[in-house]
Amino acid sequence: MTKGVKIVTIGGGSSYTPELMEGFIKRYDELPIREIWLVDIEDGKEKLETVGTMAQRMWDASPYDVKVHLTLDRREALKDADFVTTQFRVGLLNARVKDERIPLSYGIIGQETNGPGGIFKAFRTIPIILGIVEDMKELCPDAWLINFTNPAGMVTDAIIRYGKWDKVIGLCNVPVGAMMAEPELIGKSLDELVYSFAGINHFHWHRVKDLQGNDVTGEIIEKMYSSDAGIPANIHDIPFFIDQVKKMNMIPCGYHRYYYRYEEMLNHMLEEYNDPEIGTRAQQVKQTEAELFELYQDPNLDYKPEQLSKRGGAHYSDAACETIASIYANKNTHIVVSTKNNGAVPDLPADTVVEVSAYIGATGARPIAFGSLPPAERGWLQVMKNMELVVEEAAVTGDYGLALQAFIINPLIPSGETAKRVLDELLIAHKKYLPQFAEKIAELEAA
Amino acid sequence: MTKGVKIVTIGGGSSYTPELMEGFIKRYDELPIREIWLVDIEDGKEKLETVGTMAQRMWDASPYDVKVHLTLDRREALKDADFVTTQFRVGLLNARVKDERIPLSYGIIGQETNGPGGIFKAFRTIPIILGIVEDMKELCPDAWLINFTNPAGMVTDAIIRYGKWDKVIGLCNVPVGAMMAEPELIGKSLDELVYSFAGINHFHWHRVKDLQGNDVTGEIIEKMYSSDAGIPANIHDIPFFIDQVKKMNMIPCGYHRYYYRYEEMLNHMLEEYNDPEIGTRAQQVKQTEAELFELYQDPNLDYKPEQLSKRGGAHYSDAACETIASIYANKNTHIVVSTKNNGAVPDLPADTVVEVSAYIGATGARPIAFGSLPPAERGWLQVMKNMELVVEEAAVTGDYGLALQAFIINPLIPSGETAKRVLDELLIAHKKYLPQFAEKIAELEAA
Amino acid sequence: MTKGVKIVTIGGGSSYTPELMEGFIKRYDELPIREIWLVDIEDGKEKLETVGTMAQRMWDASPYDVKVHLTLDRREALKDADFVTTQFRVGLLNARVKDERIPLSYGIIGQETNGPGGIFKAFRTIPIILGIVEDMKELCPDAWLINFTNPAGMVTDAIIRYGKWDKVIGLCNVPVGAMMAEPELIGKSLDELVYSFAGINHFHWHRVKDLQGNDVTGEIIEKMYSSDAGIPANIHDIPFFIDQVKKMNMIPCGYHRYYYRYEEMLNHMLEEYNDPEIGTRAQQVKQTEAELFELYQDPNLDYKPEQLSKRGGAHYSDAACETIASIYANKNTHIVVSTKNNGAVPDLPADTVVEVSAYIGATGARPIAFGSLPPAERGWLQVMKNMELVVEEAAVTGDYGLALQAFIINPLIPSGETAKRVLDELLIAHKKYLPQFAEKIAELEAA
Amino acid sequence: MTKGVKIVTIGGGSSYTPELMEGFIKRYDELPIREIWLVDIEDGKEKLETVGTMAQRMWDASPYDVKVHLTLDRREALKDADFVTTQFRVGLLNARVKDERIPLSYGIIGQETNGPGGIFKAFRTIPIILGIVEDMKELCPDAWLINFTNPAGMVTDAIIRYGKWDKVIGLCNVPVGAMMAEPELIGKSLDELVYSFAGINHFHWHRVKDLQGNDVTGEIIEKMYSSDAGIPANIHDIPFFIDQVKKMNMIPCGYHRYYYRYEEMLNHMLEEYNDPEIGTRAQQVKQTEAELFELYQDPNLDYKPEQLSKRGGAHYSDAACETIASIYANKNTHIVVSTKNNGAVPDLPADTVVEVSAYIGATGARPIAFGSLPPAERGWLQVMKNMELVVEEAAVTGDYGLALQAFIINPLIPSGETAKRVLDELLIAHKKYLPQFAEKIAELEAA
Ligand SMILES: [Mn+2]
Ligand SMILES: [Mn+2]
Ligand SMILES: [Mn+2]
Ligand SMILES: [Mn+2]
Repeated sequence: MTKGVKIVTIGGGSSYTPELMEGFIKRYDELPIREIWLVDIEDGKEKLETVGTMAQRMWDASPYDVKVHLTLDRREALKDADFVTTQFRVGLLNARVKDERIPLSYGIIGQETNGPGGIFKAFRTIPIILGIVEDMKELCPDAWLINFTNPAGMVTDAIIRYGKWDKVIGLCNVPVGAMMAEPELIGKSLDELVYSFAGINHFHWHRVKDLQGNDVTGEIIEKMYSSDAGIPANIHDIPFFIDQVKKMNMIPCGYHRYYYRYEEMLNHMLEEYNDPEIGTRAQQVKQTEAELFELYQDPNLDYKPEQLSKRGGAHYSDAACETIASIYANKNTHIVVSTKNNGAVPDLPADTVVEVSAYIGATGARPIAFGSLPPAERGWLQVMKNMELVVEEAAVTGDYGLALQAFIINPLIPSGETAKRVLDELLIAHKKYLPQFAEKIAELEAA
Repeated sequence: MTKGVKIVTIGGGSSYTPELMEGFIKRYDELPIREIWLVDIEDGKEKLETVGTMAQRMWDASPYDVKVHLTLDRREALKDADFVTTQFRVGLLNARVKDERIPLSYGIIGQETNGPGGIFKAFRTIPIILGIVEDMKELCPDAWLINFTNPAGMVTDAIIRYGKWDKVIGLCNVPVGAMMAEPELIGKSLDELVYSFAGINHFHWHRVKDLQGNDVTGEIIEKMYSSDAGIPANIHDIPFFIDQVKKMNMIPCGYHRYYYRYEEMLNHMLEEYNDPEIGTRAQQVKQTEAELFELYQDPNLDYKPEQLSKRGGAHYSDAACETIASIYANKNTHIVVSTKNNGAVPDLPADTVVEVSAYIGATGARPIAFGSLPPAERGWLQVMKNMELVVEEAAVTGDYGLALQAFIINPLIPSGETAKRVLDELLIAHKKYLPQFAEKIAELEAA
Repeated sequence: MTKGVKIVTIGGGSSYTPELMEGFIKRYDELPIREIWLVDIEDGKEKLETVGTMAQRMWDASPYDVKVHLTLDRREALKDADFVTTQFRVGLLNARVKDERIPLSYGIIGQETNGPGGIFKAFRTIPIILGIVEDMKELCPDAWLINFTNPAGMVTDAIIRYGKWDKVIGLCNVPVGAMMAEPELIGKSLDELVYSFAGINHFHWHRVKDLQGNDVTGEIIEKMYSSDAGIPANIHDIPFFIDQVKKMNMIPCGYHRYYYRYEEMLNHMLEEYNDPEIGTRAQQVKQTEAELFELYQDPNLDYKPEQLSKRGGAHYSDAACETIASIYANKNTHIVVSTKNNGAVPDLPADTVVEVSAYIGATGARPIAFGSLPPAERGWLQVMKNMELVVEEAAVTGDYGLALQAFIINPLIPSGETAKRVLDELLIAHKKYLPQFAEKIAELEAA
Repeated sequence: MTKGVKIVTIGGGSSYTPELMEGFIKRYDELPIREIWLVDIEDGKEKLETVGTMAQRMWDASPYDVKVHLTLDRREALKDADFVTTQFRVGLLNARVKDERIPLSYGIIGQETNGPGGIFKAFRTIPIILGIVEDMKELCPDAWLINFTNPAGMVTDAIIRYGKWDKVIGLCNVPVGAMMAEPELIGKSLDELVYSFAGINHFHWHRVKDLQGNDVTGEIIEKMYSSDAGIPANIHDIPFFIDQVKKMNMIPCGYHRYYYRYEEMLNHMLEEYNDPEIGTRAQQVKQTEAELFELYQDPNLDYKPEQLSKRGGAHYSDAACETIASIYANKNTHIVVSTKNNGAVPDLPADTVVEVSAYIGATGARPIAFGSLPPAERGWLQVMKNMELVVEEAAVTGDYGLALQAFIINPLIPSGETAKRVLDELLIAHKKYLPQFAEKIAELEAA
């Protein structure tokens, strides 16, 4: 790193890239980047060029001399990288449309990180990320892998468990969102509060204390369910049951709505699905993305446009660039990340990935031991983590029995014939991206 | 016990009592009973007299001189008891009708040991059983408590956890049923096979080996899903997904249908619920019971009538009387019981009650260490056990937040507004039997 | 096994063999043996012939037609075996003499299963047993391996952990001895008591209840330390501190004397070591063995001679033959064995071998879940089991750092320069049997 | 704390107090102290006045207006305290002399935190600290308790376990010493390295990485055992076995010499014990203390004298004042502290106190999850922690059986008659400070 940092972003053609650039530009003083490589695949070539050109414009408008390389050759890019970030989407948004619409056509929640959608995103993504890890072992064995690709928890776990690669941190903007939104509810700023998160990606809780050591979680809960702040834009605005949340004295993450208010979330998604004017989230995002790429083509645009925040990934750059800068500059920043448990959440095995409050520095994430959860949350967490392990193993082995187990244990999928039909239909629909299931898919197609 | 054994049966007015008597008569040689006390409450007085008289006739027709005492005074009965069996039902079958019909009226599974029904049965039963334990500490501190009252797992766990009473064994006929039905599927008799069960009540799995040590679980699975034997009469006849079950290489219990084939079970129950000719299970049982008590009134009937087996509790006497005889005569019989884990199922805390293969002898149950379960089953088991712990705590404290958590975490209840409505309606409906929730119920009624 | 059972005994030239024969003859009705193969190595050929001829005489004097084969060809013997028992001693008694005398020459306990002696016996034995397991995988993949070779706990653990062979049971006569000796102390017979053992080989405790379920452990403890019965002949007769043992309310095994009365045990061993008339245990045993083989040569001796019981292994045949018969005839006998934990002792990892009460039947050992130990015993057990794991890894890898760690953590070896000197001297002394340490030994010899 | 911080130091008459004052003065900007209360007992009155007057002189020589109050009335001092530090010594140095000399007179290690000495220090201290906690609950329920009193791990554990007081942090200067001494060995400064500690007080290990994430533990180990730096002055200078330490790839703390080089440590201590010119550590310290108090009487001395560093507690003020300032100013400093495990060391129960790397801020210590230890260190740690639990329970209950268990399990005490004699003699010698053992002591005295 003597001559500055080399960053590689796989899935660099994403509409998020300008947000990432903004984050790096803002932190250049502590993270002196030399070059950025944006990598994408043939199908994403056009987007890559659009957003990549825009990214170079952003750097050119900055005081810093950073070269943005665009390539379809992943191995060329990875050579001697210092940090590799992954934000690719196997099958692009069209795959997500299927993840959402096929389950919903059967009345089952379709969503990209939970339920059938999340399971299939894992099936498509895990084999690819393990390939990236193999390349990294060869081409940049000292690099850090910063993963944003969803389902970020399972992907990160699989990188460690099956890829045997420990220098990885999984990221999500949900915790950042909570910490941005909540303090003002009780008339505080973030630096007047101490946050402690524990759980797994998109399934964590947090407690908050003030600087006198008083637990103010209950106070925030009270305020939350009048104003319901702190929820990422892409989750519908349904409050939690106040009696439940007060009893647990922890603040669930936004995605807990799927588990704690299943009925309302399903109904809301079915409404959008059935309304041709709205469509599922992926369809909405496709529209937003088209608009964004329209904007990015403007040769005068050299800053992150306001509209990007509608995309739902607000604060991603905060999480990502801050993590990278904290490693590079050994800052010991408190960031909530997916990392190896090591006991931080004693209700889960020490070798599994959890999403917890951690201090990020030169040696990566140092997770803070949270202690045991109360029974209700412990039970939820254990079933969800074990579901993840089943999904990962199915993704790696292509075993249909495991895929079926994953569908059956997933709390958002009512088990039975319909669930199996959704599984089978998704297997066929995503055939191109699921070589590990080829044999079973052929059997299903023949039937 | 010098002059023979004193047995006390709480809920003695149950239609099951003749089955119990038959079991004791059959085992008199190894379990020399002196007297049997059938205890019931004022509301069950008539049934108690009918079935109690019939019970005495059964003994009179036997070669043994055993006196059957009938009483409404529990404390009189408990004095110096050797074994206390509990088969009472708080609120009688009418309460079960509500447990079933109120949820189903909202499209949610109603059932007496799973879902809302099981939760409310626990709410009604646990305070009563803890009262019985207090009486036993005073009146028969050396007695064994043999519990059949459902939900047997939670009730047994609460007896140990909150009642601080360790001499208890929880029983269920489901494992007996499996061991009676399965061997012939592969051309064997039970004594040519070795069964290993692990899990919790109504949520366990088993593996089977032959006498050469070969695992024959897969062989039975193959046969099971052509003939689907080994299922208790009161669970609908839906097969498991063969791909799922073969992958796990364990045989689920019949109640797993609710979890693995939720859709079909729900639909089936709604059909019965909506068909005035059939009705829910409790309604069917009420009919069967009326017929049974009709029969029991026949002064010439001095043996267990054939019709009792339709009642659904077949093999209860095998489980119950064999357990008592095994303790009394230190037989070290293999019986599947609810008992303190102590590590037998290492995926659950050592101090929780599990349902496992055990050897039953003079010191009670000696559970066999089963080892860890594979991820899918581990996740299921952990969420279910933690749900039980939440239910128990709610039953003891009357905390509404915990009751709501129990409903939300229960995999058979889709969380959301409807779930909460069912909870509230059941609280009001069972008001008489839920003094611990009195304050909340008053609040709900006022609203 | 259609034509009767084939038994193979590795180390068949041992003086114990007649005890084994007696055990098999006694149990012929339930364990119909066809042939017995006694295997030994070139150095043990003469003994093998002597004791093998005597063994055949014992069968010839019985009503049963069993052929005893003698061979130096292990693979010939293993072909199609049903049960393989291992009682070999790498380096014969001369190696044990060194295990004992070298440490004692430095004032450190020398003993064949504890301290330096036990560690070196493991170093010599584990590679050999893993070779036997490899042969078994090829030649008798369905056979059971019944291991008596000490240190039986580590050897059994290594067979499972490194040999990946699960059909193994480790045996020891210490628990049998306790159950033979203790009941009469409180005026009972063994079948009037229920024993529960937990721990690891030569480091376990037990509790005892009577048939009314009362804990009589304390009563036995009281009697034990007036008469001090139940101790195997080869452990010196030093009582435990009554205050300590009453507080733990468990009965330690005889070998606990080394840990609970270190000072006295060491002094006693030094006395014997320093007295040329007595000598260490191995020297005494050599004398006894010489006398035994003298006897065995008598062509008229066709029964186990009385003198064998002095050898210290009394009840070995009870443990061994009863285990084999219980597997063969699916007897579900309570036997204390070394077997995979699976949670039975929740204070140790589920995948480690423990020595616990188990029911032995067609599928092997079904360990009884014992529950957690109180802190003092938990700490002892955890340090001892982890020491075993270090010893096993050192035995398999030949890593000197691990060997040194094993010496340092072993509670019977005062750490420091002398300990290291004993380690180094033993490595050199046993050079012939420690090929895995060859490099380090060469380095030591060169120094 | 609106008008500045109130600090209370129990055992304020200690010779360490000037070091503490220096630490506070240095950090006044971030920790604006209003008043300091030094509390001691009647027997320490004279020292309290000497050192207290000197403390006031130090503040008077500073730019800050802080009042030092001296009192024998603990409750007066505790009223509305913000931070309470404990550095008292029950029985003063004379008790420590007995802790050291009585065991050594029998050839057993005497030492104030390990072996018999540490056990008796716990016996004397734990009841007193629990009394302080009771006062704090009443008089300053929001205060933090910062404990330096040894054995700091057991005392901190007892405060949480038996005192039910969670706002406590236990401190030791050993980790600070290591972090001060080691970096320069490999040509680094402390801020170029990342330290991770795990274990329990006086029994922990650490790993070190550089800012590129490379593990440099082995490099430090290599250097350590040429120069052997980083060892507190009060532990003799015996190197570890390099083969052992390289294999573990963790750096043991200085106190590990007692466990890894027992022989040499014992011999060294016996030498000092037997040499009237030297004497045991307590005797040396008494001499140093006398000299220090001589100095403190000098009315011109208003700064910490150089000689204090010889006292052995160097860096205590760094640990203590930095901890308090980090809590007060929410600094999130990395400090190694004794705190509730919560899973940070998954090999120990989550509810026990461990000594680990933690970030210290407004809510106290946030321990970093370290992950499982390798078998040898895991075994050592488990036996030591369980020994601590036994000692604590004995300290609270006065149970002689537990005290004996503690002596027997302690790895520094050879078990047997001599150990028991030392236990008994120490009980009698410390009679005045051990009311919980009064009955047993009377029995011993009568014998
Ligand atoms: Mn996310
Ligand atoms: Mn049942
Ligand atoms: Mn043995
Ligand atoms: Mn210290």
